[in-house]
Amino acid sequence: MNPEPFPNLDRVIHEKARLAIVSALSAAPSLTFTDLRNLLGMTDGNLTSHLRILQEAGLVALSKSTGEARPQTTCVLTECGRGAFTEYLGHLEQIVSQFRKTTPAP
Amino acid sequence: MNPEPFPNLDRVIHEKARLAIVSALSAAPSLTFTDLRNLLGMTDGNLTSHLRILQEAGLVALSKSTGEARPQTTCVLTECGRGAFTEYLGHLEQIVSQFRKTTPAP
Repeated sequence: MNPEPFPNLDRVIHEKARLAIVSALSAAPSLTFTDLRNLLGMTDGNLTSHLRILQEAGLVALSKSTGEARPQTTCVLTECGRGAFTEYLGHLEQIVSQFRKTTPAP
Repeated sequence: MNPEPFPNLDRVIHEKARLAIVSALSAAPSLTFTDLRNLLGMTDGNLTSHLRILQEAGLVALSKSTGEARPQTTCVLTECGRGAFTEYLGHLEQIVSQFRKTTPAP
């Protein structure tokens, strides 16, 4: 087997919950915190902590709307985040195509 | 987006190093500890601890050869491990096919 794709998997994106967040943001121009929470069925605390990690890695940007009755946090994938996710999907694709050959479908 | 595949990703297999181990074992009838270590470039300690987690989950079985000058540990994917890996690959495939549509190739 070719072991190359495994160490290349971005550790920040690879975590299950963050992979779901990044995937959701890749498919939309932006999502509110509430959209993401409802879509992924995460708790506020869990989503907040994963968004913080993604923001610190420069993959996601957060902005707070002000002046409204209920201020909202809007989340977008940064250009860097979009590039990293595209690269990550490429590695996943290599894994799937490499092992689908040897492992029959269920 | 369809959030279904994310929570379904098996947490034991999803960790990068364990994904590499399970993938390698899926492609061979068995591998020795030394084969795996050399193939994946892992340290003895790191490989031992991940193999223990895989063994405790019933995904990998280990056997020690005795009576030789240098006893060897042989690692195989169990039937349960093969099924779990096949299922895991199915979820990855769903993620890749879902997001390759919205994220252009690099």
